[in-house]
Amino acid sequence: RIDSARLWNSLMEMAQIGPGVAGGNNRQTLTDADGEGRHLFARWCADAGMTMGVDTMGNMFATRAGTDPEALPVYMGSHLDTQPTGGKYDGVLGVLGALEVVRTMNDMGVQTRRPIVVTNWTNEEGTRFAPAMLASGVFAGMHTQDYAYDRVDAEGKRFGDELARIGWVGEESVGARKMHAMLELHIEQGPILEAEGKNIGVVTHGQGLWWLQITLTGKDAHTGSTPMAMRVNAGLGMARVTERVHQIAMSHQPDAVGAIGHVQVFPNSRNVIPGKVVFTVDIRTPHQAKLDAMRAEVERAAHAVAAELGLGCEIEAVGHFDPVTFDPGLVQVVRGAAERLGYSHMDIVSGAGHDACWINRVAPTVMIMCPCVGGLSHNEAEEISPEWAAAGTDVLLHAALEVAEV
Amino acid sequence: RIDSARLWNSLMEMAQIGPGVAGGNNRQTLTDADGEGRHLFARWCADAGMTMGVDTMGNMFATRAGTDPEALPVYMGSHLDTQPTGGKYDGVLGVLGALEVVRTMNDMGVQTRRPIVVTNWTNEEGTRFAPAMLASGVFAGMHTQDYAYDRVDAEGKRFGDELARIGWVGEESVGARKMHAMLELHIEQGPILEAEGKNIGVVTHGQGLWWLQITLTGKDAHTGSTPMAMRVNAGLGMARVTERVHQIAMSHQPDAVGAIGHVQVFPNSRNVIPGKVVFTVDIRTPHQAKLDAMRAEVERAAHAVAAELGLGCEIEAVGHFDPVTFDPGLVQVVRGAAERLGYSHMDIVSGAGHDACWINRVAPTVMIMCPCVGGLSHNEAEEISPEWAAAGTDVLLHAALEVAEV
Ligand SMILES: NC(=O)NCCC(=O)O
Ligand SMILES: NC(=O)NCCC(=O)O
Repeated sequence: RIDSARLWNSLMEMAQIGPGVAGGNNRQTLTDADGEGRHLFARWCADAGMTMGVDTMGNMFATRAGTDPEALPVYMGSHLDTQPTGGKYDGVLGVLGALEVVRTMNDMGVQTRRPIVVTNWTNEEGTRFAPAMLASGVFAGMHTQDYAYDRVDAEGKRFGDELARIGWVGEESVGARKMHAMLELHIEQGPILEAEGKNIGVVTHGQGLWWLQITLTGKDAHTGSTPMAMRVNAGLGMARVTERVHQIAMSHQPDAVGAIGHVQVFPNSRNVIPGKVVFTVDIRTPHQAKLDAMRAEVERAAHAVAAELGLGCEIEAVGHFDPVTFDPGLVQVVRGAAERLGYSHMDIVSGAGHDACWINRVAPTVMIMCPCVGGLSHNEAEEISPEWAAAGTDVLLHAALEVAEV
Repeated sequence: RIDSARLWNSLMEMAQIGPGVAGGNNRQTLTDADGEGRHLFARWCADAGMTMGVDTMGNMFATRAGTDPEALPVYMGSHLDTQPTGGKYDGVLGVLGALEVVRTMNDMGVQTRRPIVVTNWTNEEGTRFAPAMLASGVFAGMHTQDYAYDRVDAEGKRFGDELARIGWVGEESVGARKMHAMLELHIEQGPILEAEGKNIGVVTHGQGLWWLQITLTGKDAHTGSTPMAMRVNAGLGMARVTERVHQIAMSHQPDAVGAIGHVQVFPNSRNVIPGKVVFTVDIRTPHQAKLDAMRAEVERAAHAVAAELGLGCEIEAVGHFDPVTFDPGLVQVVRGAAERLGYSHMDIVSGAGHDACWINRVAPTVMIMCPCVGGLSHNEAEEISPEWAAAGTDVLLHAALEVAEV
């Protein structure tokens, strides 16, 4: 079993970096705080006897040697970046849990045939630079590096420039590494495990997603002196699309969600009818056909609202992944480990996107989930118990021992 | 008649300061550009032989002496601040038109019994610091200066601090000046005069307004892994209130408008269900009873939407003025001047709020309007013709000569 107190202490120490305003974290990707978090993680990896490699997307790979230099390594990890008002565990548990697995192997003097690599993937959250899981996506060949470097944040800063600014452009070319397997531990970020009273979620599938960035163009005009009939109100258009997205998600229950999290209104002045709005619709479901249908319905709804109000309408897909089926063999390894360790467990579908969803396209991959209080995530109040963290990390240890071949 | 070319040149020169991105202006109140615009205006006033007084709200008063030192002055003016994406004429025409009246009187060697004071009122637009017409409101005793100084912009900067920063805190105490009358020339900012083919709007009334800042509080949560039934989506609440405000305005046709121009979404991340939104509803009508009814309906609608979605709801009035009736004697002076000069004219109700609406409470006040192309204002594409500007300023000149007693 892993050292629960050591794991928890590391989680709490990392949470000191990029503190939020309400007990959580604001350690958004490629900020100074992200750079600081990377240095702390790198120091811990060195202390654990690992050697660090960094690729040109800033992905970090800390290797614990195996006994067979020819054997493909087993990867474990997640991400250290957070939402602007994010929690202390989303992503971080997967990275520091993997580090704790290595520390435990060191304590036990265990050797594995395959090397073990603990990974921190850059910009998983996608909050500063869309899309989410950007760097693991480049690793898996889903995006080019040029595309990734050209993503801009809300202030117009480029991903490539910001990565250089914080000093984490590595030398390795992205995706050059070959993997035997990849294991990602993550908090559920939803309510199911807690409600069912289970310690471990064995993740068999992941939802698919579309992020549709919609730009509605009307006409800036005075809120007081412009008659109702002359208005071309982009803000009203956004309101109607928001309601329609909600209805579309509701009409596809169960197993479908939809919302709008990011909004820009121009010129955003109390006495100006909005002349332009830009917002991103987030729709998800584990079912491919439903995902395709929802996308088509959202696009039709946006065009219909625009037509009804005389607005221009442009739709750009700024994020997408299809529903994922994780590797059945690895799923059975995780299930068996939970069983052997005596942890209650259930099969679960990931509601969120994860780096594992992309890596699954280039290597056998699986995820392990642990509960979080009230299903709350992407909220500074995100909380887990030390026992849940330990159980998930124990399962990660046992799965890793098996897959890396003790 | 005034010198149309000189007026137009001054308008164009002022428009060089704080240029916008699309041919208009971004000279928001108490920015460096506002400071620069004030210096140019002050220089022009000195060149025209006037003496400048500034009060502790930064209101500027340039006086042309009258022959009777005991006589109360006639005030003319408007504002030099703009929207973030504002036009070149909104407010500016009223200030520089008044200056052109003085320049013309100088050219003609005309003496008036009453002094004439050309005024630039601080923060008319209310875009950076709500409410609009803040400094004329303090002058008229509608707000305390402490209240005004404590207004904050979106970055949390205080009005009082920003006024000091640009160096325009004057010595005069606000509202100490007594006025015989106040005349404000302004572009219509609506489509009526152009549509009716009239050069001059004789402004008999002004609409009343409420700015209701609504804060809806839900719960930040993950857009992917949070089931629809568990969401407390403040963004959806804002969408519903936006639609309801539109319906309320439509149900009170004619003579009623309503929209939402300013929106803040928290944390504003693509994959976070908004946990909080803050937005300002702008509703207006010239009829007092209708204004009261609309306010009550908006507040009921916001509370109903909040209840339906489980959101917290707080409503704060951040701007308000009652419908205005301008001074009938001065209205007749303006009508007579337009008539004598041979300009087509009609009576009109101001759709926008103006400094004249507050000053009307402490002195006899009237407004003169000229058309603008397509009724467009609060838009960088705002446009007027030199002929329209000249006609309005001619009427201002003739009204001033009469009221200031040649
Ligand atoms: N795990 C997680 O929150 N990932 C961010 C990408 C997403 O929105 O699903
Ligand atoms: N004239 C003008 O645009 N004033 C701003 C205040 C308002 O919103 O009416």
